[in-house]
Amino acid sequence: MMQNEFRNHAAVTALIRGGEPGDSVRPLRWRADALELLDQRLLPAEVRWISLTTAGQVAQAIRDMAVRGAPAIGIAAAYGVVLAARQAWGEAGKDWRRAIEPELTRLCAARPTAANLHWAVQRMQQQFGTMDGDPVAALSASATQIHAEDIAANRRMGELGAALLDGSDVLTHCNAGSLATGGYGTALGVVRSGHVAGRISNVYIGETRPWLQGARLTTWELIQDGIPVTLIADSAAASLLREGCVRWIIVGADRIAANGDVANKIGTYGLAVLARHHGAKFMVVAPVSTFDLSTDTGAGIPIEERNGDELRGSNAKIQVPEAAQIRNPVFDVTPAELVDFLVTENGVLKAPDRAGIRGLLGGA
Amino acid sequence: MMQNEFRNHAAVTALIRGGEPGDSVRPLRWRADALELLDQRLLPAEVRWISLTTAGQVAQAIRDMAVRGAPAIGIAAAYGVVLAARQAWGEAGKDWRRAIEPELTRLCAARPTAANLHWAVQRMQQQFGTMDGDPVAALSASATQIHAEDIAANRRMGELGAALLDGSDVLTHCNAGSLATGGYGTALGVVRSGHVAGRISNVYIGETRPWLQGARLTTWELIQDGIPVTLIADSAAASLLREGCVRWIIVGADRIAANGDVANKIGTYGLAVLARHHGAKFMVVAPVSTFDLSTDTGAGIPIEERNGDELRGSNAKIQVPEAAQIRNPVFDVTPAELVDFLVTENGVLKAPDRAGIRGLLGGA
Repeated sequence: MMQNEFRNHAAVTALIRGGEPGDSVRPLRWRADALELLDQRLLPAEVRWISLTTAGQVAQAIRDMAVRGAPAIGIAAAYGVVLAARQAWGEAGKDWRRAIEPELTRLCAARPTAANLHWAVQRMQQQFGTMDGDPVAALSASATQIHAEDIAANRRMGELGAALLDGSDVLTHCNAGSLATGGYGTALGVVRSGHVAGRISNVYIGETRPWLQGARLTTWELIQDGIPVTLIADSAAASLLREGCVRWIIVGADRIAANGDVANKIGTYGLAVLARHHGAKFMVVAPVSTFDLSTDTGAGIPIEERNGDELRGSNAKIQVPEAAQIRNPVFDVTPAELVDFLVTENGVLKAPDRAGIRGLLGGA
Repeated sequence: MMQNEFRNHAAVTALIRGGEPGDSVRPLRWRADALELLDQRLLPAEVRWISLTTAGQVAQAIRDMAVRGAPAIGIAAAYGVVLAARQAWGEAGKDWRRAIEPELTRLCAARPTAANLHWAVQRMQQQFGTMDGDPVAALSASATQIHAEDIAANRRMGELGAALLDGSDVLTHCNAGSLATGGYGTALGVVRSGHVAGRISNVYIGETRPWLQGARLTTWELIQDGIPVTLIADSAAASLLREGCVRWIIVGADRIAANGDVANKIGTYGLAVLARHHGAKFMVVAPVSTFDLSTDTGAGIPIEERNGDELRGSNAKIQVPEAAQIRNPVFDVTPAELVDFLVTENGVLKAPDRAGIRGLLGGA
């Protein structure tokens, strides 16, 4: 539905470039022959861009979390398909469609939980059949379009979500912001729009162990746009809810099953339970590319378990005894019945269920 | 009630020394002229004892968390009173009771939330009236007695709490272990007794941001005693409860109000809500010295808020933008209605309330 809105090249370029007041951060830049990523492992200590020229490098950057966040991973993978096509065309000529297959598989396998990764690769693949000769220019335009559509969807969700808010402080988890998307953010898009509309005065941010996306990334990007942030330990959220200063929890999603169950950063599910216990509202903000109707419920969503070293502390001083076992699931599933509002670019579902989701996506 | 059990000097000495299989760790050693503390800021990377010879040093060590955990703080303060008395006697002779006052005030103010700190200083003070001449020997014996009683109480609570368990995995938070007490531990005393009795197969430990007591201390001390541990990010607890593998949450307490509200490490309250939501049991293990009947409900318990730098990361690399505000409350209050079992050395209260607590303490 949105694709036709972006035939205007100047509008696409402006959206992708970013830099407007209140929307200054972009995590990806496309340079004809390279994808540049703002390295999210180094923020906020260092703002460094890395340049990737092969699909293999893109897959590795996704796996190593130089780029992270479900929509941003999807966009990076779309550009990765362009790089893969360039290489395949160079090596195999008109047999490029066969030559590219292993690279597409590698991109899809880079991380298991995000739905947007598969969605983006599939959307790129769907155009392979219509192409003649060198596919790079057409695929590059498609990836750019995916990128611009994501930002436009985030702005739309920002408006829809912000309209629900009531001026109380809000709490977010992890980073569902500009850095996790093409730009503007999903949950943080609602925060940005809510701040402009005067409906948010302060944003509490859980630091989001073990990778500290909240402490390192969400603080940094909101500060770039002049939005007041207060960092807390993840486990302090319950006290804030009990004090009553936080009435909304706003998060993104990595995958949403057909019944509305939401996979997102580990800790999201606990926040949903706590929100319900305290009568606060729990809002999930995600583009339709996050929905996976082929997964019936959250039980079918693979939960990535990463290396326990992420909990050992990334610095020289070992903070955990070597002999300790570690479990490091980095996502969890929030059952649909704990979701009060599901905000997409197609509209808002209150108390989402199977039928509501079908209706929302049917209109897409 | 327990005081008379410890007239046997050899029994007291053996308890305080520790080192038995399954009970090998002690955080404090009393050396006639000095209190030695196992520096908990350095564990597990380094096992280093520090020697304190004045009450001022003890207060500083409590404030800086070289020693932490409500009962251990109380015991350290009791020994601190001995050091203060030695100095006061040296400086003021029979006027030592007046000379010691500022030091007692300083000890009590070292940390605001723990009830045991005031309890121990008051119990030492109560003997001042009966003393003739140099008070050091008598006060030293009293502090040693407080230390030994704490360990004996922990062993008793260990038995009482372990009898409630059913063989499922358990989850604990922070460090309510040997390191947080005179020895054996409160919550971890139940874990130790439960492990010996075959009623616990695995202990999940939340890392306990920001100070990482769980990751650094609880893992370390349980590994010393051969108990299997699995570390998780604090925010992964909700998923474990939903999976059903954890059916018990076992924690200590820093202060318990007259109505049964429990102040403990930040994150405890959230775990209590999650336990109730999932039908798991929430057990609080604390000696009677933790109860503060002069505080009517949890609303009256002061919650220490420590420096936000604890969340910035203790290492060179700054992980949080300087411009971010930080809130760092280090305790929270769990309302009595979320406590399923309150285990003390005087017995177990199921669904604790005002009357039950009065009865329990009346028997003390």
